[in-house]
Amino acid sequence: MSTIQENDFILIVYQDRRYLKRLEPGKAFHGKGGILPFTSLIGLPFGVRLGEYDVYEPILEDLIMYGVKRETQIVYPKDAAMIGFKLNIRCGSRVIEVGAGSGALTLLFSRLAGPEGQVVSFEKEERHFRNAQKNLDRLGSLKNVSLHQDDVIGYEDEEFDAAFIDVREPWLHMEKVRSLLKAGGLLGTIVPTANQVSDCLRGLQVGFGDIEVMEIMLRYYKINAERLRPQDRMVAHTGYLAFARKIEEVVPPQV
Amino acid sequence: MSTIQENDFILIVYQDRRYLKRLEPGKAFHGKGGILPFTSLIGLPFGVRLGEYDVYEPILEDLIMYGVKRETQIVYPKDAAMIGFKLNIRCGSRVIEVGAGSGALTLLFSRLAGPEGQVVSFEKEERHFRNAQKNLDRLGSLKNVSLHQDDVIGYEDEEFDAAFIDVREPWLHMEKVRSLLKAGGLLGTIVPTANQVSDCLRGLQVGFGDIEVMEIMLRYYKINAERLRPQDRMVAHTGYLAFARKIEEVVPPQV
Amino acid sequence: MSTIQENDFILIVYQDRRYLKRLEPGKAFHGKGGILPFTSLIGLPFGVRLGEYDVYEPILEDLIMYGVKRETQIVYPKDAAMIGFKLNIRCGSRVIEVGAGSGALTLLFSRLAGPEGQVVSFEKEERHFRNAQKNLDRLGSLKNVSLHQDDVIGYEDEEFDAAFIDVREPWLHMEKVRSLLKAGGLLGTIVPTANQVSDCLRGLQVGFGDIEVMEIMLRYYKINAERLRPQDRMVAHTGYLAFARKIEEVVPPQV
Amino acid sequence: MSTIQENDFILIVYQDRRYLKRLEPGKAFHGKGGILPFTSLIGLPFGVRLGEYDVYEPILEDLIMYGVKRETQIVYPKDAAMIGFKLNIRCGSRVIEVGAGSGALTLLFSRLAGPEGQVVSFEKEERHFRNAQKNLDRLGSLKNVSLHQDDVIGYEDEEFDAAFIDVREPWLHMEKVRSLLKAGGLLGTIVPTANQVSDCLRGLQVGFGDIEVMEIMLRYYKINAERLRPQDRMVAHTGYLAFARKIEEVVPPQV
Repeated sequence: MSTIQENDFILIVYQDRRYLKRLEPGKAFHGKGGILPFTSLIGLPFGVRLGEYDVYEPILEDLIMYGVKRETQIVYPKDAAMIGFKLNIRCGSRVIEVGAGSGALTLLFSRLAGPEGQVVSFEKEERHFRNAQKNLDRLGSLKNVSLHQDDVIGYEDEEFDAAFIDVREPWLHMEKVRSLLKAGGLLGTIVPTANQVSDCLRGLQVGFGDIEVMEIMLRYYKINAERLRPQDRMVAHTGYLAFARKIEEVVPPQV
Repeated sequence: MSTIQENDFILIVYQDRRYLKRLEPGKAFHGKGGILPFTSLIGLPFGVRLGEYDVYEPILEDLIMYGVKRETQIVYPKDAAMIGFKLNIRCGSRVIEVGAGSGALTLLFSRLAGPEGQVVSFEKEERHFRNAQKNLDRLGSLKNVSLHQDDVIGYEDEEFDAAFIDVREPWLHMEKVRSLLKAGGLLGTIVPTANQVSDCLRGLQVGFGDIEVMEIMLRYYKINAERLRPQDRMVAHTGYLAFARKIEEVVPPQV
Repeated sequence: MSTIQENDFILIVYQDRRYLKRLEPGKAFHGKGGILPFTSLIGLPFGVRLGEYDVYEPILEDLIMYGVKRETQIVYPKDAAMIGFKLNIRCGSRVIEVGAGSGALTLLFSRLAGPEGQVVSFEKEERHFRNAQKNLDRLGSLKNVSLHQDDVIGYEDEEFDAAFIDVREPWLHMEKVRSLLKAGGLLGTIVPTANQVSDCLRGLQVGFGDIEVMEIMLRYYKINAERLRPQDRMVAHTGYLAFARKIEEVVPPQV
Repeated sequence: MSTIQENDFILIVYQDRRYLKRLEPGKAFHGKGGILPFTSLIGLPFGVRLGEYDVYEPILEDLIMYGVKRETQIVYPKDAAMIGFKLNIRCGSRVIEVGAGSGALTLLFSRLAGPEGQVVSFEKEERHFRNAQKNLDRLGSLKNVSLHQDDVIGYEDEEFDAAFIDVREPWLHMEKVRSLLKAGGLLGTIVPTANQVSDCLRGLQVGFGDIEVMEIMLRYYKINAERLRPQDRMVAHTGYLAFARKIEEVVPPQV
């Protein structure tokens, strides 16, 4: 059984608030539930309740939501989960990402693809690139990721299983990204506005099939067995998700 | 570049309909877009358009949605994606499942956990057990899965990373499942009714923390750039998802 | 107490199906619950259960949903209710409607405005005009309605409290309709696509304020106390609703 | 054309904020858009833009949302609109209300029922009763309303068209309220939790038919034609609405 060690990331849950912290000895968590000295945690198993605090081993969702320092639009679990699923990312997947942003999805792809997988990510803007790199360095040694401060370039010999584009004008990158996908490879993108969805659909007309556009609404409930009801407020919108698959027209067979 | 071979599974997309087929030589797909002889596909890359048909390599979602023969309630992509994500399943995960049903989630867990992972699944009802086994056999050689026609038993020496319960009365299994989870291990369940959610919440009071209940609504859009609008109808409800983490009360440290 | 009489409209409810019928003596309702001879109902009060059938006095919603013969897109209760509310229609309201369609909203406006109110409605297409007129004639003597087969014309001396535009290109009519509204008068419209919403917003830039765009999702539940859950499927989209108020720029006061 | 007069209620809109004020001479509105002296408004038509402020004649929604001083749970437009619609309230309706709360729905019923209608409302708790009475007095001379600080009593000779119950345990009042409804009369209620819905459904088993339970989700959009998208956050839940109609079992006719 693994136990809590120095420098581990820990997730502290107090009521419905969550905090991701690195266990630096000598430091402590100060919250409404009192002071939680980190040294007292060392050697305990994960999943412990100390007074009003629960302390857990962070999962990928925790890292994305509470560990990534954001300079760009947050990616929500509802969308992250679907993106990983629709891009079919699993052990060994090779993924290309255009627009690393804060690196949250880069982290998702990296973890899902595992040590046998590969994630190539591009972030053109220097400030975002540096932040993403810092987030990736801090949250895990991700040897399967290569992050480039650049447009999508090179990698001509590679064939990627899936690609995700998360920039303002995804349609400008679709042709290039398509050329890096294997036959039948998967493409995804997320855009906040309906106008952008229309532009994406125009961009996908050439060379992509099985196009889907969707939005996901996630509603949490108050966890009271005798008074079960949804929470009062929710996220109304993050973005529209679009997915498609690379296709090649072939001369129809003699049917 | 991998090409379509005999006995491969293929996904045929015609307009917004999808069909999962095994490529048996000499056979053909008969649909509204005409006859598609399978032999004509052999040797082509995946991701090809032949007349009105698109032919793709099936992804996990396709197998779950179109390949699993169902005798039980279908699991939808919106829920499957979130279940995999919230249970943090990835290369090497060890997962326990109570209620294999038709095996759709078993397949999900197996694929996400990969060759280094392990999935132990229980299905008490003989008819469902046989159907699940058949689905798993047919859809992929999943050496990481062991399916038992039984209640949750044994495996006392194991520590699982995550567990999913998909039976009518999940609360009856929570204590046993908890004993098989590692410290801080993850639990998920899905139930169709609000009354069951209340019962699950009562069951989770002991030994679980960070409880979340949610429902996911997925709305697809018509893929028309000039007339962008949601589809007319949608799935209104599949089930309520509940997630929690195993927790142990400890004597509070001297704060 | 009023009782069921010859030629009354009646609403027959069988399980979750509803049927609006006119009580023609000698006729009968033939359904899965058996034959219900209309003569047997005469003299009974509304709100009676006969075998598996419930018979009610129709309300406005029943007339709109089950009584209006449709040649155009249906208006749903969720939208109709909000339209009446946001246009503030009540006893005495004067309402202008551009695009009567099948007359369902005309009926709504007429009923809500009551005998002291006034509804002026335009329907350019002859076929729709005739159908709307027939629906209005059949479903109630609505002396407060005048239906015109024309574009929006005349009525220069009038000042309407509210206007609703339900045509393909609402923005083409906004300026004219604005001229018929009283100062601060209310405008509403419904369009199915996001692209049309953008065009409406452009049209509303001039002369309208307090602009709101919304969509309403209505989810019904299965009425089972022990197994409470939403219905399986729902209407995902009918249209986007936009509302605004007529505004006049004035020279700012000396503040 | 009616113009703004002393003591009129006015709605001030600044960006997406709305304020309901009574025009007291000598006073002014102080907001982020500067100072708006009320005297400068007198004699202007409603629907005027002065600097960054729009000034409108309040509609019923404005009174309910911004004019009612609340001591109880707010009623939202999405629900208020549907309640008025499903209870079929219009000029001349006679309505009974159990649980006036802050009087917001009382005001709705009163306005929709008009001078020919009648609203009888009960509020047992003295503090709420006084607040409701004050709200009703302040927001309009509503001669068709009688508000009682009491349980539902008396009115034995009356027959009401519709009833709305808005208390913690609506099921306790259903039998009494039913006795005051006309044959086929309409009943509505709103409850925040799923558990209460189950109890309501049990209460409606006797003497009511055509039972419907629903929830309404309203999503507003940002009014930017070039960047059309929903607002970021929304109300996730207010309450579950239930509606039914009074029914009488009769000896089945000789079919």
